[in-house]
Amino acid sequence: MKTILAQFDTDALPSSFDQVVAVDSNVEQLFSYGSVTPGNVTGLVHGLMFTRGPAELKNSAIFIGGSDVAKGELLLRMVSKTFFGPMRVSVMMDSNGCNTTAAAAIASSRKHLNLAGCRAIVLGATGPVGLRAAELLALEKANVTVVSRTLDRAESACITIRTKVADAQVTAACASQPSEFEELCQNATLIVSAGAAGVCFLESGVLQKIQGLKLAIDLNAVPPVGVADIGVMEKAIEKFGVICYGALGVGGLKMKVHKKAIASLFESNDRVLETRTIYDMALQVAGIAT
Amino acid sequence: MKTILAQFDTDALPSSFDQVVAVDSNVEQLFSYGSVTPGNVTGLVHGLMFTRGPAELKNSAIFIGGSDVAKGELLLRMVSKTFFGPMRVSVMMDSNGCNTTAAAAIASSRKHLNLAGCRAIVLGATGPVGLRAAELLALEKANVTVVSRTLDRAESACITIRTKVADAQVTAACASQPSEFEELCQNATLIVSAGAAGVCFLESGVLQKIQGLKLAIDLNAVPPVGVADIGVMEKAIEKFGVICYGALGVGGLKMKVHKKAIASLFESNDRVLETRTIYDMALQVAGIAT
Amino acid sequence: MKTILAQFDTDALPSSFDQVVAVDSNVEQLFSYGSVTPGNVTGLVHGLMFTRGPAELKNSAIFIGGSDVAKGELLLRMVSKTFFGPMRVSVMMDSNGCNTTAAAAIASSRKHLNLAGCRAIVLGATGPVGLRAAELLALEKANVTVVSRTLDRAESACITIRTKVADAQVTAACASQPSEFEELCQNATLIVSAGAAGVCFLESGVLQKIQGLKLAIDLNAVPPVGVADIGVMEKAIEKFGVICYGALGVGGLKMKVHKKAIASLFESNDRVLETRTIYDMALQVAGIAT
Repeated sequence: MKTILAQFDTDALPSSFDQVVAVDSNVEQLFSYGSVTPGNVTGLVHGLMFTRGPAELKNSAIFIGGSDVAKGELLLRMVSKTFFGPMRVSVMMDSNGCNTTAAAAIASSRKHLNLAGCRAIVLGATGPVGLRAAELLALEKANVTVVSRTLDRAESACITIRTKVADAQVTAACASQPSEFEELCQNATLIVSAGAAGVCFLESGVLQKIQGLKLAIDLNAVPPVGVADIGVMEKAIEKFGVICYGALGVGGLKMKVHKKAIASLFESNDRVLETRTIYDMALQVAGIAT
Repeated sequence: MKTILAQFDTDALPSSFDQVVAVDSNVEQLFSYGSVTPGNVTGLVHGLMFTRGPAELKNSAIFIGGSDVAKGELLLRMVSKTFFGPMRVSVMMDSNGCNTTAAAAIASSRKHLNLAGCRAIVLGATGPVGLRAAELLALEKANVTVVSRTLDRAESACITIRTKVADAQVTAACASQPSEFEELCQNATLIVSAGAAGVCFLESGVLQKIQGLKLAIDLNAVPPVGVADIGVMEKAIEKFGVICYGALGVGGLKMKVHKKAIASLFESNDRVLETRTIYDMALQVAGIAT
Repeated sequence: MKTILAQFDTDALPSSFDQVVAVDSNVEQLFSYGSVTPGNVTGLVHGLMFTRGPAELKNSAIFIGGSDVAKGELLLRMVSKTFFGPMRVSVMMDSNGCNTTAAAAIASSRKHLNLAGCRAIVLGATGPVGLRAAELLALEKANVTVVSRTLDRAESACITIRTKVADAQVTAACASQPSEFEELCQNATLIVSAGAAGVCFLESGVLQKIQGLKLAIDLNAVPPVGVADIGVMEKAIEKFGVICYGALGVGGLKMKVHKKAIASLFESNDRVLETRTIYDMALQVAGIAT
């Protein structure tokens, strides 16, 4: 019996990125759907639930993707509600690569730092990747400063994280000028930059001015990058005593995690892969004991 | 040369149910198209007709599906008209599972009853599955009462059946209240319930009150089912002297028939699989001599 | 690692013709997208560029098709612009079969004629196939008369060809009546008819009246054909001293060229297959030394 991955994409054209990764994860049959919405997803899920016997359902799985993370989260809830009893298939949600990217970034941090009690700051923390990176840092018991352009949005992100992580140590902060971002970063041990494409938070030369900084990760692959001192390809490169990762430096681990996650969907019919479970895989792929 | 099944679906998103069954029928390459209409189907058919030599065309085939049976029938006519001479591929029409479900239901009846001369009643007989079930019963020379909510629709269904089955013994009847359905069923040997999802024709406790009833089949899988005394999973379960089949009890045979039909498309390039031919397969799969 | 062909089709439903040929060219995984536009193509290209390492990118490729050749050409420009450095995949453009058909037609001519200095006339030369046939004839140093319904369009086609072929010997002409087409063809050695479906340029009995004619090719497969004296299936059939090819007579070579072109996409990651490169393949497939 062939493994089937049904790709539910919220964009009109299903992501070719997710398709190639599915094929390279040895999915034998890929069904790709575009413009999937809460209104049309139920029939697609039923078609997967009712075509193979309960013992065979682990050979069918669902991948939820697309550029809009909020839409992807809504689809995940709809899909989960449609299942009942043993009539279910495994499902992974990774719209815009948000979960695999955040998981790879924080697992990369774990290679170099003890995150518990660590002073971490996430720039662009209200975006899809930033929010998940901050959640994972809180999960690792770091003291996380959650930075956004407005305090309201940063506080809202903190509330979201506290609902997911008991005892999360998260503090909201806001900044919009380069000098403000620099000031907020002072005394941070770890900086994660996860802003929108083209937004530069820390300008050239700033990195060496930050006291106590040990690790800096910039997840922006499109120039200008978010931390001007970090090259997009850099992977664990030390500069001014700071270990640096660029977006593609994290990308290798992200791809491995993405493929491992896809493959694991077919190990049973009840997996739900989102932020936490994907992070656990990232730690495992990175060779970090949990 | 790979076998190719082109799935022409009249819905925007092609049915994942039909896709999984295609894969599980060992189709090697599946092309799925959504929103297929009489206006865009011809080019798709030409692309299948003109790409392989006449001797190889049996490796390409068409499956017509979607939730709207009338649209599927129209597509089947358009596809058939596009073929000429040896330039054709085999085609199967099973929008909404109408043909495979009706065929499996009536073949299941044949295991238990001699249908010739049998008093059969079809509830919800003007829907896609009910109409086909009534046609197949007429073909088996049963005396069929065709029940709908209005007499007009029931009579129209009888006319349709008479154009397809010479000497069909079909009688129109209408009912809308549970008591009316119960009354119409009196003295029936076979009841087939094929109403819309959620419509209950015969309430709890009614089945044992029907004189002379030997077999009852309910094709509604979504609760409330059409015959409240029948469980959706029941398969040839005897209750009050009546052999009962629920929708999933018929479903196993339906799936086998569906897969056999798909596989048979690739045996030659001139098959047209619809109600009758699919019924013949159902009898064969059910081990009934024809 | 599986070979992946991403089919970018400018029509709403991707061409089933191009899909079957891709499968028959041993593409292992086909991703088909409909309604691809300059506005949504970039993300699709990125997904192909960034999922496999530079050394592996030759296993991913793009096919641009659809009924509208101008839209296909625009997509090809957009796709080419998106690549940078070694981050690219091979790409083929053959909207409406324009390149493979023109290449097969002119390669077929080369079997019988020395095209250099040959008097060639292309009827319907401003259509997608006709324009490419005229370009290839000019490339072979034929003296080409480019015929359209209006002189403006014919002259515009000549300008286009001159920008592509240095020293192209092309002359614009216009005609709309059968007698005018016949007159323009007098003294031609080679006639290529590439008009729209259903347009007849040279009526029955005309072919034998054309002085000095050696070869006539009609690329219209839908009756009435463009040269009434040529049967659609004819392949190198001599009539009145003229070697004749109908559309399907050219079609066998066209299919071989199409398949060879697809296969060659996976030999490296930097191929761009359009008119010229596809013509070179046609000559090779036809066994003509270049």
